[in-house]
Amino acid sequence: MAVTNTRKVRIEWGDCDPAGIIFYPRYFEIFDASTALLFERRLGMTKFEMLKELEFGGFPLVRTQARFLRPTRFGDDVTVNSTISFGHSSFDVEHELSLNGETCVKCSEKRVWVMRDAHGRLTSHPVPTAVLDKFQG
Amino acid sequence: MAVTNTRKVRIEWGDCDPAGIIFYPRYFEIFDASTALLFERRLGMTKFEMLKELEFGGFPLVRTQARFLRPTRFGDDVTVNSTISFGHSSFDVEHELSLNGETCVKCSEKRVWVMRDAHGRLTSHPVPTAVLDKFQG
Amino acid sequence: MAVTNTRKVRIEWGDCDPAGIIFYPRYFEIFDASTALLFERRLGMTKFEMLKELEFGGFPLVRTQARFLRPTRFGDDVTVNSTISFGHSSFDVEHELSLNGETCVKCSEKRVWVMRDAHGRLTSHPVPTAVLDKFQG
Amino acid sequence: MAVTNTRKVRIEWGDCDPAGIIFYPRYFEIFDASTALLFERRLGMTKFEMLKELEFGGFPLVRTQARFLRPTRFGDDVTVNSTISFGHSSFDVEHELSLNGETCVKCSEKRVWVMRDAHGRLTSHPVPTAVLDKFQG
Repeated sequence: MAVTNTRKVRIEWGDCDPAGIIFYPRYFEIFDASTALLFERRLGMTKFEMLKELEFGGFPLVRTQARFLRPTRFGDDVTVNSTISFGHSSFDVEHELSLNGETCVKCSEKRVWVMRDAHGRLTSHPVPTAVLDKFQG
Repeated sequence: MAVTNTRKVRIEWGDCDPAGIIFYPRYFEIFDASTALLFERRLGMTKFEMLKELEFGGFPLVRTQARFLRPTRFGDDVTVNSTISFGHSSFDVEHELSLNGETCVKCSEKRVWVMRDAHGRLTSHPVPTAVLDKFQG
Repeated sequence: MAVTNTRKVRIEWGDCDPAGIIFYPRYFEIFDASTALLFERRLGMTKFEMLKELEFGGFPLVRTQARFLRPTRFGDDVTVNSTISFGHSSFDVEHELSLNGETCVKCSEKRVWVMRDAHGRLTSHPVPTAVLDKFQG
Repeated sequence: MAVTNTRKVRIEWGDCDPAGIIFYPRYFEIFDASTALLFERRLGMTKFEMLKELEFGGFPLVRTQARFLRPTRFGDDVTVNSTISFGHSSFDVEHELSLNGETCVKCSEKRVWVMRDAHGRLTSHPVPTAVLDKFQG
């Protein structure tokens, strides 16, 4: 069960550093939003709505790794392909960011599904079946 | 000579603070990109291309003021209307950011047109006629 | 009743844009933290502790204005002077950011004191006397 | 030849997301500044000065990986330990971010030393001996 979403992102002036290329933490902002969009596209609700309507308290990152193959700069319209695969109470996302068909960044992330318990603490929780079903077929 | 551009922006999870609403410096990131887009739409070139092809070294901000009328939050798709009017070597932009037709933020900014001199320093420069012409009519 | 706090801030590489100078939304991040620090120094508790221990749900910005007089760049250690004066359920802060004794940015902000009501909404609330007392004398 | 630098960083309100914990791309901003500080402490010059005075055009990231073990939140004063080891024209940095002695994030990064060639392009370059010498003994 692997599902892919694609989106376009404009690299802005304010994303770039004095070398004239993107400041790499901005890539992780892009990837975080790309993961959220994967769910929004499949579930038909925003992350804000997910928090209100699902057994869901967030999907914090456990680990990530990224390789930076080619720089991007302001004015570039890059493509982000994000592919998700689910475990029991976690999931993996592979992001590939490209410009004009050439890969610029490859990133993988592992996240856990969490809920708030009675004390307001975030604890691990199985990904709800209602969510998994939306990623089927 | 006042020209307006409109764009849509998604407020992201990572733009918001622990109160669940946008962290206000993110608005200024949005407005900076909105000003750049005004030029891109009119001139048919990105800011990156402007720096290479025009008498242009940037348009640093001289002053800005903003009023925050209603908060926005992650998942909101806001509309930004940006209206520019030119002086001799400066210009003013009025941004209005709204959600579902209700104004959330009003911001005005004054910027100067600069070029790099022979020593690499940024100095004030009249807005080129070739630029002004594109904002006519 | 006007109280001033002073702090040093390092401008980082990632705060700067392709022109090599600070990207101005970063100044507002600096000023937001400077306002929080004013309270922390006077109250002897962090904003995190204020939210737990005081009649306090945040101090969202109502309006701000800033003038940018001189640019700063990565490696600069700037000084931020922040002066607060209180109204009934709001307060004003004047920030002056300087480098080697020369003013680079002047910013004023108006914020409201809010609390969460029974429905979780943020509503205006008088600044608690226990807070005002700490800014006296 | 492995050299370590330690610094303290305050996690700010604006670094945190609606879950009340740090938005993870902010960690990479912290690590980027931590790597720059390693050089500043050893060389006795800022990155700005390095660009003017050394055979140096930057040290872009080639790859990074990070594990997030415990969250941090606004008001936390975290400690970052950064250990560098040099290759020929690249170097590795291990960052460990901890709060009250407990590790919160472990991150490793590989960067290349670059210079601008005659066409303004960034190309790989051996780490200058003058730099390596400062990290000895």
